[in-house]
Amino acid sequence: MKASIITVGDEILIGQVIDTNSAWLGGELNQLGVDVVEILSVSDKAAAITGALDRAFGISDVIIMTGGLGPTKDDITKKTIADYFGVEMYFDDATYDKIKALFERFGRTMTDMHKVQCYMPINATLLNNDMGTAPGMMFTKGEKLLFSMPGVPFEMKYIFENGIKPVLHARNEGKSYVFHKTIMTSGIGESFIAEKVEHISDGFPEGLSLAYLPSLGSVRLRITGKGTRPDIKDDVLRYAGIIEKEVSKYVYGYDNEALESAIKRHFDKLGWTLATAESCTGGYLSHKLTSIPGSSSYFQGGVVSYSNELKMKLLGVKKETLESHGAVSEQTVIEMANGARKLNDASVGIGISGIAGPDGGTPEKPVGTIWYAIALPDGTTHAHLLKATKDRGKNIEYTATMVMSRLLSLI
Amino acid sequence: MKASIITVGDEILIGQVIDTNSAWLGGELNQLGVDVVEILSVSDKAAAITGALDRAFGISDVIIMTGGLGPTKDDITKKTIADYFGVEMYFDDATYDKIKALFERFGRTMTDMHKVQCYMPINATLLNNDMGTAPGMMFTKGEKLLFSMPGVPFEMKYIFENGIKPVLHARNEGKSYVFHKTIMTSGIGESFIAEKVEHISDGFPEGLSLAYLPSLGSVRLRITGKGTRPDIKDDVLRYAGIIEKEVSKYVYGYDNEALESAIKRHFDKLGWTLATAESCTGGYLSHKLTSIPGSSSYFQGGVVSYSNELKMKLLGVKKETLESHGAVSEQTVIEMANGARKLNDASVGIGISGIAGPDGGTPEKPVGTIWYAIALPDGTTHAHLLKATKDRGKNIEYTATMVMSRLLSLI
Repeated sequence: MKASIITVGDEILIGQVIDTNSAWLGGELNQLGVDVVEILSVSDKAAAITGALDRAFGISDVIIMTGGLGPTKDDITKKTIADYFGVEMYFDDATYDKIKALFERFGRTMTDMHKVQCYMPINATLLNNDMGTAPGMMFTKGEKLLFSMPGVPFEMKYIFENGIKPVLHARNEGKSYVFHKTIMTSGIGESFIAEKVEHISDGFPEGLSLAYLPSLGSVRLRITGKGTRPDIKDDVLRYAGIIEKEVSKYVYGYDNEALESAIKRHFDKLGWTLATAESCTGGYLSHKLTSIPGSSSYFQGGVVSYSNELKMKLLGVKKETLESHGAVSEQTVIEMANGARKLNDASVGIGISGIAGPDGGTPEKPVGTIWYAIALPDGTTHAHLLKATKDRGKNIEYTATMVMSRLLSLI
Repeated sequence: MKASIITVGDEILIGQVIDTNSAWLGGELNQLGVDVVEILSVSDKAAAITGALDRAFGISDVIIMTGGLGPTKDDITKKTIADYFGVEMYFDDATYDKIKALFERFGRTMTDMHKVQCYMPINATLLNNDMGTAPGMMFTKGEKLLFSMPGVPFEMKYIFENGIKPVLHARNEGKSYVFHKTIMTSGIGESFIAEKVEHISDGFPEGLSLAYLPSLGSVRLRITGKGTRPDIKDDVLRYAGIIEKEVSKYVYGYDNEALESAIKRHFDKLGWTLATAESCTGGYLSHKLTSIPGSSSYFQGGVVSYSNELKMKLLGVKKETLESHGAVSEQTVIEMANGARKLNDASVGIGISGIAGPDGGTPEKPVGTIWYAIALPDGTTHAHLLKATKDRGKNIEYTATMVMSRLLSLI
């Protein structure tokens, strides 16, 4: 079963709003084994909506549409769909009663504007929306289905879960299967992974495919199985296992787990604690680590030691070290990592110091020169040099990713 | 000038990645006066890409395409475009030399796979990409333009800024004028601003419009002038001045200046320094502040004191305070702010402690209870309570924004 997603609203086209609804719907449909072939974002104009419907009905069995169902003048989706099907609108008393009750509950008075929301195309099957005033709608066109929902994410999700998912599930059952397995790697580039695993994907059976999804410092490998065979899942898992063996050194998790989440998982398992001392990353590493719920189970604390004074005072970095080697040096980050460990009485300490840019570089230490060290419970400290770019934001993100990746491979 | 945005990649359709590129591009094109009529996300399949190109060339003057330019087998955009135009590919020596130099700098060897990246359609004008290995490409089809870029956001942004924006700007110049002036406010809600300024926008001359762009803790007011009058800019600036007068108390900058950038500007002007002590925000505030180039001019350092031990040891928070009031309390953040100030010998100190969630709340202090304090050079300390949501990521971002906004209004 093929699906198109259509999102309606000028706010998406002018970049005022990031379309997160489509990604959520894509994930849900994919789980149901429905193949999303296209996402289309169009303006709040009747011609644009009609054009999108024509295109989507041409290539898909199911259309999921969000947006343009509100009470204001720019919300024209409902009227446009009625015109598209050439049907009249009727006043739906049940919707009126529901909106009225909702407004009474919040002590507000219903206006004429809200009465507009009670008119429905006569060929619509209404889908309950307990999260807002506009119900979802289902339409049929021959064998094909069109669903229309409000664009507000929690209303959209409610209607999909309760009104759309069961319908699609029943339609698709036993017809087609989609299954994904994603292997999360870090510390190796996309092309180097490809060299190692391409011979495997070249021998994939019908219906299986491999995608490389690189981001700063990490690459996801997604094995997808699509088809009418109920046992496609077994194939995906079997080949995922074979691929994983080839790159096992670099695998830190599965199915979109973040590095910071894998770190928490490992530290919790080991009963270890962690402390950080950051200079050029300015707290970004501790932010990433603490963005995971419950990270206080292992994360003790961090110091953002921008000044040399703080490096000496809190982390015990020696004045001689700073004077003879400089703040951005192997020696300094080793002392920072050990200082962070000691200060927090933690199992593991991390120290980072570098020139994030865009200014502050020298011929010997150009912008992008970044040292980091990881001090382990066994007393060893592992220092590494990163050669990053001239872009400050990218360097900060890249460093945090590389440090987390290295930490995972060490523990 | 009308534009279509096409993003290529199964990862978008299955919801593995949220398409942020389109929103960014939509915002940029809008600033240039280019009208984005459709965003289309399609699969990594030749037929899907070709179908999208047909549609976009049919309705738009300019197509901006991202994704599918990497070195692996699932990256087929380049070959598909060459086939679409019916042209051959050539081996581009300049691209080869650039990738080779890049790899040498990082001490890696180029593989055959990277050589694939050097083949270009003969009708492509290459656009420099200093952020990665795949250059952008420009194609013409009659009067129409097609641009293709990698999907990695910072590469895409670099190519757009340097290779595409100037071309589109030149094309559109003298034909229609678009001018924006954005007033950055914080500490006041969208609807309260609207009450104050709506009577002004109601009297706008032809071609002027006002948009409210709310984000967590701040609202941007964008005055846009569009039309064929070259003097539309004067109207925009005049009305921006009138609007600013009505909300001057809440204005902290212009034209998308970030709060953290405005803070650096003010601190540098005053010759002041800043230090932070963060608990629940986990380093996110210091990360935001240090994301601005040159922030070491005023930012001294920060402590991420997740543990109570660190709060006492480094910041001098009293044991009695923690015992009688708790770590999340007015008294604790006041001591943290003053402790941060003292530890770093800084002009201003900030202390933050709260329950970011999703767990850890109590009936008296539910998830989202967040205290912060700002200690000023005059010896006063200003403490505030935030009541945020149950969403950890949102709470961290909201808190950092509110603290920065409050800091700006205090100094």
